[in-house]
Parts: sequence; structure tokens; C-alpha cells
Amino acid sequence: MSETVVPIAVGPARPDPTLLIKAIGEGGATVADLAEARALIWAGGPQEFPQRLPASIEWVQLPAAGIEDWFEAGVIDRFPGVRFTSAAGAFAHSVAEHTLMLLLAGVRYLPEQLRATSWRQQDFFPHVGTLRGKTVTIVGAGGIGRALIPMLTPLGAHVIAVNRSGTPVTGPDIPESVETVPADQLGKVWSRTDHVVIAAPATAATRHLLGADELARLKPSSWVVNVARGSLIDTDALVAALATGAIAGAGLDVTDPEPLPDDHPLWTLPNAIVTPHDSNPPQLRLAAFADHVAANVARFVANQDLLAPIDPTRGY
Amino acid sequence: MSETVVPIAVGPARPDPTLLIKAIGEGGATVADLAEARALIWAGGPQEFPQRLPASIEWVQLPAAGIEDWFEAGVIDRFPGVRFTSAAGAFAHSVAEHTLMLLLAGVRYLPEQLRATSWRQQDFFPHVGTLRGKTVTIVGAGGIGRALIPMLTPLGAHVIAVNRSGTPVTGPDIPESVETVPADQLGKVWSRTDHVVIAAPATAATRHLLGADELARLKPSSWVVNVARGSLIDTDALVAALATGAIAGAGLDVTDPEPLPDDHPLWTLPNAIVTPHDSNPPQLRLAAFADHVAANVARFVANQDLLAPIDPTRGY
Repeated sequence: MSETVVPIAVGPARPDPTLLIKAIGEGGATVADLAEARALIWAGGPQEFPQRLPASIEWVQLPAAGIEDWFEAGVIDRFPGVRFTSAAGAFAHSVAEHTLMLLLAGVRYLPEQLRATSWRQQDFFPHVGTLRGKTVTIVGAGGIGRALIPMLTPLGAHVIAVNRSGTPVTGPDIPESVETVPADQLGKVWSRTDHVVIAAPATAATRHLLGADELARLKPSSWVVNVARGSLIDTDALVAALATGAIAGAGLDVTDPEPLPDDHPLWTLPNAIVTPHDSNPPQLRLAAFADHVAANVARFVANQDLLAPIDPTRGY
Repeated sequence: MSETVVPIAVGPARPDPTLLIKAIGEGGATVADLAEARALIWAGGPQEFPQRLPASIEWVQLPAAGIEDWFEAGVIDRFPGVRFTSAAGAFAHSVAEHTLMLLLAGVRYLPEQLRATSWRQQDFFPHVGTLRGKTVTIVGAGGIGRALIPMLTPLGAHVIAVNRSGTPVTGPDIPESVETVPADQLGKVWSRTDHVVIAAPATAATRHLLGADELARLKPSSWVVNVARGSLIDTDALVAALATGAIAGAGLDVTDPEPLPDDHPLWTLPNAIVTPHDSNPPQLRLAAFADHVAANVARFVANQDLLAPIDPTRGY
């Protein structure tokens, strides 16, 4: 803790800054007007960002995880003497929790059980599965994939994490049992996979990463969960695999096309769970941003390295 | 590992003993006829248990967690020189996983999302919640409650475990942040509780443990999950709380009455999830028993203390 109070400003006036004001206090600083502040916590968009900042501002916290828009708007280049941080990593938890929910609901046969209006215990018994002893392949080991791993392993699942480089995924929350496989070896993983989670960025290389061939190599008991972007799955091939029972089901927070049109078969297939890209809704996003702000303010006050620093020369 | 091979018998012929034969091998022993065996792994009921055992039998593994029936049938008293073990603890994992599924499905608003046939993102946003930062009170810190704790804490939930004595719930899998509260202080816990899990035994003292008064002290965002016995909740009071929105919802694997009759309101209330007491279906039960057998065989072979020993003088 510093001896003197560290003044930090919040802007803009909307959305309601109450949570952020609280976070600044939790981080050990005090809220001040921009003119007297040493840092600015910004919760708005790039277009409304101040054209000028007082010379006293040393650090700006932006509210987004991906900050391409901020570079394009010139915000970061406009203030070469100021340190900028993004909210990268702050929003992964909610999406990972949603992923776990979709996977568990599928594996334990919740959709059909929710439709029941009578006690169909003997019908349902053989369909109730477990993640214990099963292998979950997570394609994409970024923030969401990494946040999901420590939620899966206490359930007894074995995790295969797939990333571009194959550099082992490690960290204080990552059990040593996690296997890392480079993306170019993905074809060798399907035969060992029980369930698939798609959490990789949408690029030309990941488009239709899960298509008819890959789906055919999964099991009749496999669930596929997509929380990344709809384009990573070949939707027509997925619909066919769901309709024929080639796989057990799919939990989709993202679709292709998106929004999913009203007459799309994914709405009515009994083994498809669709949530309308709501795995990180605004109120959870704001709460997660506030937690990130509290942590970064505490680091600023203690003169420690900040979380998610933006390197203006690299553009991220 | 012992130098000599340890012969262990399996019985009866049905259910299919394949998994148990494999478990005996995994534990480092070898399958033998009863006449030559030093131990017996029993997968049947108490009525079909052998009237006599060869003098070579030192240990019998029973397939049930609660073994009242076995005492009543006289099986345990019939063989005073034999060590008996139960399957206590073996079946908790599947029920805990089911509990987590019901709680997550509720908190993230899955029932209504599953009914949707169009992209209702704006409708759903405000209803999608998280366990992060929420307090989950687990009433009953036996096998299921203890298995659930390490599944909940990685989600950022704070856990209050309620047991009879208030003796702190500790263990290698139990984070130090877990709070233990004695059952007679339960009334003081509700105001701090976001969600409730019922995992306590059904006794005269726990009947209607959650009634109108307790439900009234929960929040409009609270989910109640019951995986123990239906009688622990006052069903009429629960139906009223669900219908008025006094609580957000209920996930019930057990009901009162059970089976739940076809015309019961719990089948049609949009915020009730009913699964027909299938949180531990036969195929998962058998797999879990096999894991327990493998662990106990390994201990028997290594001359270590066995898991879940039965004390004939105590009746459990």
C-alpha cells in the first residue's frame, strides 16, 4: 500500500459507474475528477473517449478484451506517454461456466428429461452419462479454454488441450495431467475423444474445423459444445450428425448463421441445445470488468506490473 | 505388491461380472473360484449371498453403501471371522455431478432457453446468472456433499457446508475457504445463502427442513437442488415459492411423493427441473463399484487398511 491516496477517474457517466467506483476503492485507490487523476478507468466505447487527457494520467484501463477498434479509432496512438491495459482474460470465466453447463446438461441427458411430464426413470437410466473418466478435447487454449480446464478436472475428466504451437498448457490452475496437442495433429485426437469443446478464434484456418469427416470419427455418445464462433463447425454436417445419432448431441452458444433463423432445424432437433450467444451477458460482463479493475488498481497502487498491458507497437 | 498371487472370487454370475473381474486385475490380484479364494467381491443382493463361505475367505466386499439390509438378512453376523467392507463413498461422485448439472442449468436459465424456437438473446440476457461469487449452502456434508465441494469451488462459489456436529469439513480436496455450520445454526445461514443443495439423510429431524419459512428467506434469484430424499422439502411450499417467483427455481432428482404423479404441478412449472431419481443410474453405479473394488483389492494385496470397513458391533 502507498502512503498517499492514489486518485483515479472513471468515465463515461453511462453505463452506471457504481460497480467501478466500488472496484477502485477495493483496489486501494480513491475516485477523483479526471483533472486530478493519475489513471482513468474507461467503461465506454472508443468514439466517446476523451480527445485530450491531463498530463497527470499515467494509465488507462479499457473495457474490451479485443482492442482492434481502439487502435483503429486512434485512441492508443494519441497518447504515447500513457500505459494502456485491456480487459483480456476478464470475461473468460462466464463463458467457461456456460460451456461446462452445456456439456453437463448434454452428457446427463437433461433436454429429454426437461420435456418429460411423467416419471420415466427406466427410459432415462441408460442415457444418463458422466464426465468421469471421459476425455474432453478443448480446441483452443486461450482464456476460455484455460478457464474451463480447472472446472473439468475435478469432475474426473481427462483434458486434451489443442493449441496452435503445441506448447504445453501449464499454470497454477492447470493440472499436470492435461495433455497439449498442436493443431496440426488434431486429426490424431478424435479417436481418443469423448466430447469436444470449440473455443478457438475464427480464422481462415479454423473455418469448418469440425466437418462431416471429423464428426464421423466421434462417438454416438459424444457431445460437441461450441462457445467460440459458429463458422468453426460445418452446420449442415452437424445437423446431419445430430439427426442420424452419429453423435449424441450439441450445445451451441454460437451458430452459423447467427442469429439462427426461426425455421432452422437446430431449434427442433431434440439433441441440440441452443443458447443465443448469451454466455457472457452484459451484467456479468460488467461485474467481471469490475473485478479486473479492482485487481489492476491494486497493482497500480502497489507499483506492480499491470494485467493485460497493451503494446502499442504490436497492436494488441 | 505381494510376491504371490492373491486369489479373489466374484459372485454372483449376474449382473455380468466383467467389470469386476477387470477391477480385480487392476487391483493386482487374480480371479479364482470361491473354494480357493482369500476374498469375495459380491455384486448381488443379501438374499442370494452364500450360506457358507470357505475358511480361506478373509474379506468380503459388499456392493451397497447403506448396509442395513445385510445386517437384517444376517449375512454379516453369520461370518464373525470375516472382514466386511461396504461401498460407502463409491457412489457419491455421480450424484454430485448431477447436482452440479442441475444447479448450473438453473442458474444459467437453461430450461426457458431450451423451450425457445427463436433467437431471444435480449430476453435471456438478464436471466443468465453465474455461480462466481455466490454462496452455495450444502445441507449435509456426507459423501455427496463432500464430493460436490471441489466441483463448486473452481467455479468461484463460496461453500457453506452444514453438518450435524459443526466439526469443520476438511480433507485434501476441500479448500480452506469452506465454512462449516452446525445444523442447529441453519436458521442463521439463509440470509447469506444464494443457492441451496439438499444432500442430508432423511430422518425425523430433517423432514421438511426446507419449508415455507426457509423458502421465504431465500432470494428471487435462488435455486434449490435436492438430490437426497423428497421428504426434506415441503413440496407444497416449494410449489408455491416456484409459482410466485419467491425463488428462481428448483432442480429435483428426488420428490415427495415419489414417483411424482403425472398431474403434479412440478411437471409443468417452467422453473422446476425434475429428473426421476436417475442421478446414479445402474451403469454408472456398476462402474463406480468397479473403481471401488480395484482400490480395495489393491489395499488388500498390499495388506493396507481397507476402504469403508463395516463394524459388526455398530451395525454400519
